[in-house]
Formats: sequence, C-alpha cells, structure tokens
Amino acid sequence: MGRITQRRPVVRIALHGATTRRADTLAVEEPLEIRVVGEPLAVTMRTPGHDVELAAGFLVSEGVVRTGSDFRSAIHCGGPGTGGMENTYNVLDVALAPGVEPPSTDLARNFYTTSSCGMCGKASIDAVKAVSAYDVAEDDVRVTAETLAGLPDALRAHQDVFDKTGGLHAAGLFDAETGELVVLREDVGRHNAVDKVVGWAVLNDRLPLRGHVLMVSGRASFELAQKAVMAGIPVLSAVSAPSSLAVELAVEQGLTLVGFLRGETMNVYAGVERVVAPVAVG
Amino acid sequence: MGRITQRRPVVRIALHGATTRRADTLAVEEPLEIRVVGEPLAVTMRTPGHDVELAAGFLVSEGVVRTGSDFRSAIHCGGPGTGGMENTYNVLDVALAPGVEPPSTDLARNFYTTSSCGMCGKASIDAVKAVSAYDVAEDDVRVTAETLAGLPDALRAHQDVFDKTGGLHAAGLFDAETGELVVLREDVGRHNAVDKVVGWAVLNDRLPLRGHVLMVSGRASFELAQKAVMAGIPVLSAVSAPSSLAVELAVEQGLTLVGFLRGETMNVYAGVERVVAPVAVG
Repeated sequence: MGRITQRRPVVRIALHGATTRRADTLAVEEPLEIRVVGEPLAVTMRTPGHDVELAAGFLVSEGVVRTGSDFRSAIHCGGPGTGGMENTYNVLDVALAPGVEPPSTDLARNFYTTSSCGMCGKASIDAVKAVSAYDVAEDDVRVTAETLAGLPDALRAHQDVFDKTGGLHAAGLFDAETGELVVLREDVGRHNAVDKVVGWAVLNDRLPLRGHVLMVSGRASFELAQKAVMAGIPVLSAVSAPSSLAVELAVEQGLTLVGFLRGETMNVYAGVERVVAPVAVG
Repeated sequence: MGRITQRRPVVRIALHGATTRRADTLAVEEPLEIRVVGEPLAVTMRTPGHDVELAAGFLVSEGVVRTGSDFRSAIHCGGPGTGGMENTYNVLDVALAPGVEPPSTDLARNFYTTSSCGMCGKASIDAVKAVSAYDVAEDDVRVTAETLAGLPDALRAHQDVFDKTGGLHAAGLFDAETGELVVLREDVGRHNAVDKVVGWAVLNDRLPLRGHVLMVSGRASFELAQKAVMAGIPVLSAVSAPSSLAVELAVEQGLTLVGFLRGETMNVYAGVERVVAPVAVG
C-alpha cells in the first residue's frame, strides 16, 4: 500500500482495563498541489494515490475538462534531473489539449463569488448550471429501491483501506440497472474520493456517466451534488443526511438525491421518478 | 431556528413496508464570503449563524488575528441603504485593528505552497510552526482518561441541530480539569464548527486556550490539528480516526491528540504525558 497507510505507535487506554502500547495504522494525508500548464491552481489535502485521476476529476468539477481528450497528460514535477530536487510526488502538473482553455488561477473565487453583496446559494446553483456540459435531467434511467439498498454494503465490502484505518471516505460508481460496482476510490477527503472516481471515468472517456449511481460513504453536501451533475451522473446516494443546498441543486438540475440509505430504508429528496419502489407512494 | 434548518418534502421508501411522503428537516448550507477590509479572502460553505465567530476563528487559524483586540468589527455587507440590494447575510466584511496586517488575498496558496516541487506534509507543518503565536508544548495541563471518556456524550447531548437533521458536525471546547463544556458549535463543515468555537474564544479574549480540550464529532485531520495549535489548545480529541499528518503535526508541536474516543476506550497518538490513565502503561 506504500504511502496510503502509515504505522504509528499509540497508547490505548481502557477505563476499566489495561493501558497498552501498540502500533496503529493511519490513513496518510499529504498535500497535493494541482498545476495547469505550470500555473498553481489548487492545493488539496489528500491520500496519495490516483493523483492523476484526482486532478482530472477536479478539472471536470470546475468545468475545465469535459472529455478524456481535453486532458492531455499529467506529470509529478521535480524528481531526478531537476537539479537534485527530491520528488515528493505532491505536485502534479497537467497539460490540456490544444484549444482547451486553462482555468483562471483565481477560479475558486470566480466560481462562487458575484461582485455584489447578494451572494447566495442560488448563485452557486446558477454557476453549476452555467458551466455544466451535461444535462442529467435528460437521463431517463430507473433504479430499483432494492438495488439502492444494496449499495452501502457493496461500498463497504470494497473499502480496503478503511478496514485498516477507520479513517477514509469512499465514493463508488455503480451501474444503476445491475447494481454492479464500476469503480471505487477512498480518500481522507470526501470530495477527493469523488474527484478520483470522476477522474477515472473521464480518463477512460466515459463521460457523461448516464445510467450510473454515485454512492458516497458520508453526507451529501452541495459540493458533492455539484460534482455528480458536472460528470453527468443522474443519481447521487449517501449513507447520511444531505444539506439544504444539495437538495436545492438536485431539484433544479434534475439529479436524483437519496439520503439516509441504511438497511432497508432510504429518503428520496429529489428526482423520485427514477426510483422504483416496491410499493407505490401512499 | 430560522435559517439553520429547513423543511423539505421527502419520499421515504422501506423495502418491506410503506412508501410515504413526509417532511424532513435539513441542515442549511449556504456560502459565506469572508472579506477583510473589503477584499475577498475566502468562500466557505457553512451553516448560517455565528458568522462573525466563524470569520474571527478563520483568521486565527490563518495567523492574522491573535487576540480579541486584533479583530475590530465585522458587518454583513449589503442590506437597506445600499441601493436596494437585498442583504443575503452571506458576505461578511471584517475590519482589523490598526497595525494588524491584513492577510494576502492569495493566503491559502502562500500558506501551503513552496516555490519548489518539494512540497510535502513537512512543509505544511513548518508553516504552522512559523505562524503560530502560541506554544502548546508549554502547557502542562493534565486530563484524566475518565474526563476524556465523558466528552463524546457531553458533546452529543448539546447537539441541538444534529438531533433534528442528522447532518451536522460539532466542535466543543471543554475545561480539561472539570470536563465542563465551555462552548459548542455545529456546522455542515467540520472546519467551520471549529472556527466558530475558536472565534467565540478570541472575541471573548480567551486566547491562548490553555487548559482546554477541543472535542470534535468526526475525524482529526491536519486542518483541525492546525486550528487547535493556532488557538493554543493543548488537547484535541476526536470520535474517529486521525490522519497521518494530524499525528505528525501533534508530535512536532506538542499537541495531545486522542482518537477513537468511544465508550470507555481511546487511542492517544501524541502527547500522552498529559493523559492520566487509571492504570499505568503496561
């Protein structure tokens, strides 16, 4: 596993038991600086591994990359031959295809901020609408409640690193019809796990991800709903609660949003027409 | 609760039961743009409320504000009298005391990025060391394992909004000696909940927070450990796992870091000398 996990000494205390020293396995967290054509764009604290996917997925979420051919190449800069500089593998420089406009390096700010003081959630939703290349509302896929109910266990069964550390978020891409896992990624950051999944898909030229379900291990925030929409994923499901703004975005964009997906029950907050329930709505 | 929670219609599906329509309570998520002297600094997706504390705490974490007197005032810009612009209460403009240097508006980047490709976790740790006003290693407070074991329940008991929504992170500041809750804040973002706690403290002129424990509802990331160190808090405890970089920062800076604090057991990853165990280490 290399740098994905790290062993550390720990003192385990039990109130009514022994106090022991032992080794514990931790999820590794390291900064990754994403550069585009040499220009620093963002720094994210992530679990190393699948860095190229992370960068590609991040650029999909930001509306810069829309297809696999938009993304030309990526290299970890530094390394042998750069004047003896040690390559930490924490800086990744992305080259875009000719004609693909590089992002403004002040992109995060441009994305959310209006010049007025009227900034609001609605503006964030409008920004997603403005830059999204795909219209998830057009996807008429259906998914049964049975299939959805099986996803948390399927996700959990493939979370290799979580089993060792208890410290990672997971995102899994599933086929809506068969419920089969397509790809799963784990990371200390929930948004990074999703970016890695979307990045895998765009690098394999599979965008838009029509007919798929994105399942996340935690909560459904605005940011995660945004990432689903930007990748053309019609269904987002989460083990825990969605936020108000995630639901608003889902309603506006025609994304199916499922929360509290646990055991045999689930809450559908938006796009319920895609979910085939065993019993009709009472 | 106003804008802290929102009611939304939801379809509840049970595999072997009824499918029902009902109303669900969601945690509100809205963007907050923090400006310093009119200059946009950061946008964070947060749960509205305690915005001034959030901004103050954010500026403590960034090394801009160190005492209550550094922070002069903050206003939600817009509102009546600004040409009819609606005030969304999502833009907060902070004024600093004379002599307090405003942050670089490119601060996030400056904080983490070195010009070389040798960027690594160590550089992030060094950056915290360089800007921290307080030395938590000097704090010789002790906390018993019994006191620590009581914190998760105390935190949970005061999480009013979580009870309604299941969708919020919490951060609580406790007296290390008595285990009494000093202040608790909830937010859709874990870092925001901590910023609000630290902001409350700096605005009440209580920094550095010697003799206190910061308890968080989720995992302990580098960012949360950084925020504890910047506020002079000697003990950080978390219900779930810490990351590798959080532990490294704790070891380097003399922060006590407790993870997997559940029921009667806990793991101490750093600064174990502050934790009084019922039984000596075997």
